[in-house]
Amino acid sequence: MHSWVDGRPADALSLKDRGLAYGDGLFETIAVRSGKPLLLERHLQRLAEGCRRLALVTDPELVRSEVLAYAQALGEGVLKLILTRGDSLRGYAADPAAPARRILQGGALPAYPAAHAAQGVQLFPCTTRLSEQPLLAGLKHLNRLEQVLARAEWRDSDHAEGLMLDGAGHVIEGVFSNLFLVAGGQLLTADLSRCGVAGVMRGEILAQAQLQGIPVAITDISLEQLHQADEVFVCNSVYGIWPVLCCAGMRWSAGPLTRKLQGITRALLDA
Amino acid sequence: MHSWVDGRPADALSLKDRGLAYGDGLFETIAVRSGKPLLLERHLQRLAEGCRRLALVTDPELVRSEVLAYAQALGEGVLKLILTRGDSLRGYAADPAAPARRILQGGALPAYPAAHAAQGVQLFPCTTRLSEQPLLAGLKHLNRLEQVLARAEWRDSDHAEGLMLDGAGHVIEGVFSNLFLVAGGQLLTADLSRCGVAGVMRGEILAQAQLQGIPVAITDISLEQLHQADEVFVCNSVYGIWPVLCCAGMRWSAGPLTRKLQGITRALLDA
Repeated sequence: MHSWVDGRPADALSLKDRGLAYGDGLFETIAVRSGKPLLLERHLQRLAEGCRRLALVTDPELVRSEVLAYAQALGEGVLKLILTRGDSLRGYAADPAAPARRILQGGALPAYPAAHAAQGVQLFPCTTRLSEQPLLAGLKHLNRLEQVLARAEWRDSDHAEGLMLDGAGHVIEGVFSNLFLVAGGQLLTADLSRCGVAGVMRGEILAQAQLQGIPVAITDISLEQLHQADEVFVCNSVYGIWPVLCCAGMRWSAGPLTRKLQGITRALLDA
Repeated sequence: MHSWVDGRPADALSLKDRGLAYGDGLFETIAVRSGKPLLLERHLQRLAEGCRRLALVTDPELVRSEVLAYAQALGEGVLKLILTRGDSLRGYAADPAAPARRILQGGALPAYPAAHAAQGVQLFPCTTRLSEQPLLAGLKHLNRLEQVLARAEWRDSDHAEGLMLDGAGHVIEGVFSNLFLVAGGQLLTADLSRCGVAGVMRGEILAQAQLQGIPVAITDISLEQLHQADEVFVCNSVYGIWPVLCCAGMRWSAGPLTRKLQGITRALLDA
């Protein structure tokens, strides 16, 4: 499907765009089923938080209506929304009043092997560490070289995802997923106030766990805690939940809490 | 002047470019005088180091010949070269053999007030800290949100540049400059192995100091050392050297070593 730039069909971008020059912008990758963008409110909420923290000027209702219209036209697939700070003047300084540029792109849903969700996956232990930057932590911004470097660490298809730590060795997330572990009946996921992307599916799982009365903790997680966990899974808003079976000699099995939450997310994504 | 993409005139870029999607690339900003790109070997050397560390595939001789031809056509101004990993397939994974996309843009030399070089400048003390990422430190890559946030901290024209520290409070650099200080006859500049951009003019100044027999140290610099310095200056490959007069209550005057090095860099940039 044709991309849109600021609401109009386009397949090219100004060479002066600050998204290219500096990665000065944000993005969202949204699953679309039957013309509907899934988990839309959570995507728009994270985007709004990103706009606030980066001081990107945008009209939330315009963004919402464009996403709805684009998803309707796309039907089935993945919608990628990029907001950039528009064209560069000179250097890093920007016009604080300039409206953000809106880019919408559509593609097919990725064809992940069915076994990823059914049996579980193996994580590659990435040596690329996430740097600590509280001003950007949690946001899905366009500065993603760490993820590019981490993803380039493996090429085999045995590893469906990679495990990323921060500089201090805390367990943070996957390259394109968030990570949860289950320990003593409690659901744990990393504190993302210093690094990492606060995924939409992570937010949904935390909310669903609360509804189900499952105790949750958002906390620093050590490799030892990961090792000792009863269950481990990764998640994102496109594939839902994949149980994690092993990583760097550590082994787990797909357990009951993972399966329960997987059923809930599958229902959301098959909607 | 018209931009070039992969050697051909163009004013637009594929919406799938990984420079836009992830900031997956590098850039150089090169001063051009009388059709010649200044300090070209240093720019190409840093670019080659960036390509090596990001595993960007490029033909250095092709890049060099395009830069020379573009500078010839530009005559006077600033040439910006961007290399990106080309179009995205899906997600962070890239084709390791895909050649980098080459983007060349030209603009006028920036019209900085003559007083910046003649009298000196005031630095804004930025609260945005540089995060530590040894895998990217020193490179002029396209992930520049920290500089965008730092540059947005001041809008007045009293401050010509900003001062940036790392998370531990070490003095690192300006937003678009490197920083030097003179203490007891020695020239000091920050160690950039954990964060910062290893500027071409910084490299040139270090080489010139060595030629002149001026002792240099590349080291961690504290705010107290900055405070106690005899002279402070900032530099980049477009404006050369600006003496620093004050920052956050600290004061210095434009001293003899700054003036000596400024004369040398001026000769290089007026060539």
